[in-house]
Amino acid sequence: MTSSHRPSWVQGANDSETGFTLANLPFCVYRPTPSASDSIGVGVGDFVFDLRRAAESGVLDLPEDVLASCLKPRLNDLFARGRHAPERIRRALQALFDLSNTSHDPLEACLVRRSEVTFQVPFEIGDYTDFLTSYHHAFNVGSLFRPDRPVLPNFKSMPIAYHGRSSSIIISGEPVRRPRGQSSLTHGGSAPNVHFGPSQRLDFELELGAFIATGNPRGRSISLMEADEHIAGLCLLNDWSARDIQAWESQPLGPFQGKNFATSISPWVVTLEALEPYRSPRAPADPPAFDYLTYPESVARPTFEIFLEVRISSKRMRETGQAEQLISRSVFNRDSYWTFGQMIAHHTINGCNLRTGDLLGSGTLSGPERGNEGSLVELTRGGKEPLTLTSGERRAFLEDGDEVVLSAYCRGPGLPRLTFGECRAQIISA
Amino acid sequence: MTSSHRPSWVQGANDSETGFTLANLPFCVYRPTPSASDSIGVGVGDFVFDLRRAAESGVLDLPEDVLASCLKPRLNDLFARGRHAPERIRRALQALFDLSNTSHDPLEACLVRRSEVTFQVPFEIGDYTDFLTSYHHAFNVGSLFRPDRPVLPNFKSMPIAYHGRSSSIIISGEPVRRPRGQSSLTHGGSAPNVHFGPSQRLDFELELGAFIATGNPRGRSISLMEADEHIAGLCLLNDWSARDIQAWESQPLGPFQGKNFATSISPWVVTLEALEPYRSPRAPADPPAFDYLTYPESVARPTFEIFLEVRISSKRMRETGQAEQLISRSVFNRDSYWTFGQMIAHHTINGCNLRTGDLLGSGTLSGPERGNEGSLVELTRGGKEPLTLTSGERRAFLEDGDEVVLSAYCRGPGLPRLTFGECRAQIISA
Repeated sequence: MTSSHRPSWVQGANDSETGFTLANLPFCVYRPTPSASDSIGVGVGDFVFDLRRAAESGVLDLPEDVLASCLKPRLNDLFARGRHAPERIRRALQALFDLSNTSHDPLEACLVRRSEVTFQVPFEIGDYTDFLTSYHHAFNVGSLFRPDRPVLPNFKSMPIAYHGRSSSIIISGEPVRRPRGQSSLTHGGSAPNVHFGPSQRLDFELELGAFIATGNPRGRSISLMEADEHIAGLCLLNDWSARDIQAWESQPLGPFQGKNFATSISPWVVTLEALEPYRSPRAPADPPAFDYLTYPESVARPTFEIFLEVRISSKRMRETGQAEQLISRSVFNRDSYWTFGQMIAHHTINGCNLRTGDLLGSGTLSGPERGNEGSLVELTRGGKEPLTLTSGERRAFLEDGDEVVLSAYCRGPGLPRLTFGECRAQIISA
Repeated sequence: MTSSHRPSWVQGANDSETGFTLANLPFCVYRPTPSASDSIGVGVGDFVFDLRRAAESGVLDLPEDVLASCLKPRLNDLFARGRHAPERIRRALQALFDLSNTSHDPLEACLVRRSEVTFQVPFEIGDYTDFLTSYHHAFNVGSLFRPDRPVLPNFKSMPIAYHGRSSSIIISGEPVRRPRGQSSLTHGGSAPNVHFGPSQRLDFELELGAFIATGNPRGRSISLMEADEHIAGLCLLNDWSARDIQAWESQPLGPFQGKNFATSISPWVVTLEALEPYRSPRAPADPPAFDYLTYPESVARPTFEIFLEVRISSKRMRETGQAEQLISRSVFNRDSYWTFGQMIAHHTINGCNLRTGDLLGSGTLSGPERGNEGSLVELTRGGKEPLTLTSGERRAFLEDGDEVVLSAYCRGPGLPRLTFGECRAQIISA
């Protein structure tokens, strides 16, 4: 926490509202110009600090292998060395960006204004796994399909998950085309009234993502106590969902076409070192879990207090200059029954191997109260109670031209605000 | 079909029983020696023809870009050029291996005895999707869990699928460690009696796999008529399944830990050109499907007649010199309700993008009669009617030391036998 209030000479890096202070320094991949190749970088103030350029120009005093990783177009090589490698970069940059460092001309040559660059998916993602960890989300959605038993008994026994699609993971800003498909408002088990066409119940899901730093060999598990060491960092994740397609296809094998057309993520990988001051207890667990999912009493703060928000704007709202409308808020440690450490311990207990760059989604983060719902199907009670936008328009589900913006931050007494940036995408017509 | 009976100077290539004639020439990736780097190759007779060595030594008269693909350690680059690129190699080799070619000294330097090499997973696999296409499998397994409605109404409306795990796809010969996990014999919805430990209901699943050659951009679908052009070739696939883990976890999001500990595949990519003579009609379809899944009448033979077999041996059987025991047979075109073309058309109808090297599993191929069941849970009626092995041992599910061998071939009047080789793995203890 020594770096929390460290003043900097970098423009914008002392602005605790934007959250890109020296205490954060999240990693990213970006393309400096449309024809340039991708570079890895670090977010600071109003800028991206280009690590490739820095490594090439010799301004970083770091081991050769770490510098070699800075020349790669994705973060895999750097984080495959273990969390200490990127952390050495963060510490070096905290010193170089410190207000006390007056020789910053060579560093300024590596600073690119954040507003001018295009971000890329930061890792080459092998496998993407999406979990179901919010009790309230499970309850809200389960109530729509199984009013008699909304939350299944396995929910508190293990972090339920399914494999998602890695090919269609896209970076914030890329548009999402409305998917076509077979759909029905009944589940696969009921008598069908199936039609084919563009989804009529397109939805977002507010999630956090965790990237894997070092993986595990197949057949060897990662224990709960080791798990955090395998996390590169966290990002925002929007698990776009076509509820009508999903409802008809999901039995017996789970979601497929209702999800795999697109998953958006934010560009910043916020490291666990940056998140350390915001550690927090997990939500009260009952009943007790199996040993491999149970923290010893010495681990009092196995998760993180992260505040999440969803905003929306319609085409009309943007055309008439209206601000994005806040429609939901949740809090990671409060609303996720399981921690990312527990997700990793469970994921590997059967010997399944994780690899550097793999992405884990937390599942939709819905909280206990109205206004905490992490998806439209929950906010609108299955579409029956549409939202009213500030433009007067109503929304049961997403319309073409709607833009959804996820954002998140950490804050605390005596601590600077730390931002996750945002995960933004607009719906385009089928 | 001109090459069907083409005699060859290569040892073993005229042996129609082994099935590696000039009509086949399947692609693979192998490691010549433990310390060598991986090479791509083609199976012929008793050998692998090393394409890297051939490209380097100049014995192949092919375009520069195709030769450059032969130097890569995986098949992705070659098949990303489109199916015509590997097909040029096959045609060139058919001429070079022809009995009429007497200058084969430089070629012999590229032939490595098949029995002496170690195979590798032939593609870098981005995403792996597993389908559910056999009506009989759906019926057999569904009957165990939902006797009142074993096959759900969506089965004949679309090829149901879920995303599998690409990190744990392994090559034939690699052992499979028995997974540990939470398990229950009841589905997630019922009152649980959950325990933790090694799976007690470990099973195999007999499947075919299809590798993607060229993919599609996100947001753009592949039509049914274009779909075959996107298939690199087929292989055998064993979708190992821990039934007790699967039963407890699978609601509401589908299989996860019950499957993702390992998926075995055979080393050979049998191209669609090699399979062309074995094209066949698909199983009678009723009711009619949506247009995007319906072949025009002009396409009379959209699938392939491929005969599949499962053999098993226990440790005791091997120690006492007993042969592997044939326990199941099925036929792809008869037992899969959907074709690979339909699987691709459905997979991309929502804009989901496929990439070169992606793997599609057909789902367990079970046929209509006893002895056609593609998994133990079906063969033994949920474990209630164990198999008797030739050693006198009984098997409800797989025991440590058991080895499962999948194999497949095509045959037809006036046609040589074409082999898929085998997909073999032994269970080791948790």
